[in-house]
Amino acid sequence: MDLIDKKNVKTVCSIGGGPIGAGWAAFFLAQGLSVKAYLHSEKEEKDYCSMIETAWISLEKLYDLGSINRNSIQISTNLENAVENAQFIQENAPEILSLKQDLYARLGNIVSSEVVICSSTSGLMMTDIQAHCATPERTVVGHPFNPPYLLPLVEIVGGEKTNSEAVVWARNFYKYVGKVPLVMNKEIPGFVATRLQEALWREALHMVANGEATPEQIDEALMNGPGPRMAIQGQCLAFHVACGAGGMATNLDQFGPALKLPWTRLKAPELTKKLRDTMVSGCDEITKGLDFKSLAAERDRKIVEIIKIQKNHVS
Amino acid sequence: MDLIDKKNVKTVCSIGGGPIGAGWAAFFLAQGLSVKAYLHSEKEEKDYCSMIETAWISLEKLYDLGSINRNSIQISTNLENAVENAQFIQENAPEILSLKQDLYARLGNIVSSEVVICSSTSGLMMTDIQAHCATPERTVVGHPFNPPYLLPLVEIVGGEKTNSEAVVWARNFYKYVGKVPLVMNKEIPGFVATRLQEALWREALHMVANGEATPEQIDEALMNGPGPRMAIQGQCLAFHVACGAGGMATNLDQFGPALKLPWTRLKAPELTKKLRDTMVSGCDEITKGLDFKSLAAERDRKIVEIIKIQKNHVS
Repeated sequence: MDLIDKKNVKTVCSIGGGPIGAGWAAFFLAQGLSVKAYLHSEKEEKDYCSMIETAWISLEKLYDLGSINRNSIQISTNLENAVENAQFIQENAPEILSLKQDLYARLGNIVSSEVVICSSTSGLMMTDIQAHCATPERTVVGHPFNPPYLLPLVEIVGGEKTNSEAVVWARNFYKYVGKVPLVMNKEIPGFVATRLQEALWREALHMVANGEATPEQIDEALMNGPGPRMAIQGQCLAFHVACGAGGMATNLDQFGPALKLPWTRLKAPELTKKLRDTMVSGCDEITKGLDFKSLAAERDRKIVEIIKIQKNHVS
Repeated sequence: MDLIDKKNVKTVCSIGGGPIGAGWAAFFLAQGLSVKAYLHSEKEEKDYCSMIETAWISLEKLYDLGSINRNSIQISTNLENAVENAQFIQENAPEILSLKQDLYARLGNIVSSEVVICSSTSGLMMTDIQAHCATPERTVVGHPFNPPYLLPLVEIVGGEKTNSEAVVWARNFYKYVGKVPLVMNKEIPGFVATRLQEALWREALHMVANGEATPEQIDEALMNGPGPRMAIQGQCLAFHVACGAGGMATNLDQFGPALKLPWTRLKAPELTKKLRDTMVSGCDEITKGLDFKSLAAERDRKIVEIIKIQKNHVS
């Protein structure tokens, strides 16, 4: 594939007038890029600019925006004009498959073939989105987390017709502009983070439906329990460190039988030797030799800071 | 019931030599209480004291411990001695039902009836634990999150023979010493936070078992995606604010059909009108009239701070 050098991307196009489209636009502006925005209707422009303004307050705290021009944005309701001269496209249209398929059919013809097109879709598969696109090899999922101008994660995966070079390009580009890209090997619904969040969310809905907890109790439990820890340790590392020097091996060997208990309505996978060993070696990868004591100390140090932030209410 | 006034609790007993027992001991010491610790064996003492020392580093940052005596602790391997004169018991024995049943049979006879006994169990039911206890009416689950000296959540629920006054007492006592107590109406396995975390965890194990993600990718996805947000907004409020002015109602009305999609292996409950309305009014309870703009601004302000903490690695 003959893709543009990521360092030569000066202008990006953000398609869509919602919080994700506006959030991406604000993020790219803050990285010093010019943005061309496509909105479905002129009526969206006021809200769109207001969302960028809100995002800017936070972006200014995270980055040194001294010489950055926030007004380096052109808004258009004409798709052809919006994508013209853009060296990267971030698509944030509504999550309706037929709508996205029609959009990619158009984009496939009007966007230069050296330009990668990424979709912010959280639930659709690129294989389906690119079905009617004449140039699908450069179409990739680049799924952010809300708010996209703050949360670093971008989940990346191609469809059946995507060229693997476009996937690599997307990873390199997102990393270059300061995101944390996660490339998936398989195209599975919900990617990684949304699947995990959705399991938690569905269990929460079950609890409310059964009168076991109110939404308020669910939120209190999360914010005062696993929440502060999850910002600084994923669930694998959290369980690894919770079990002291024995780590993940102790966790799985001791709590393995608990996977059979009805602690959630989600049935657990069989805890085979292979799965156990993959989890254990995975935690070794994460910790890179750091021992329990340093890991726990680092965790505690950061939780203390997060609890201080939680207590510091504006109201 | 004739329970001791929570303000007259000067000495508490923490049973168990693991990280939870030591963590509770450190927390109570930091609140100015005297602690009597029961360890199964003298061999555990060195690690136990080391865990209290580690906890103290963080406790000093969160609380003003000027006049607090960290050495106000007596360690014993004799259960009768350990519980003597304690006005509250926090039990942190291993998660083995028969072991806890035998322990509560003993505690039921040697602990004064005006003293509440709380169990840190994360997976057992108090109805089962209290089965052979002669004075079960004051036995309650008081389940913390690890590390118990930092994370504020304590999930509280009684067993079939627990008097509701003991449940209320436990809530008031934990609140009095600075925890965030969550009283559950129903005794369900895993309580609230563990159930939610367990749904996420089982989905993570499925993904690893299927080669869809590595443990490292799972942790990266959580820490850079939902993690920073979950420390300051539970999942209900997060989805409420993500949908702009329309809030949870927009979320459920738009994404309701997505509950049928295989975004996790956990089957969602039926999204009935009743469940929808309960979620929507629940979010109104949480936000107490704050509008989308202020909620999003508060979220962003705190996420910025958390991202700064994440970036600030010791190593």
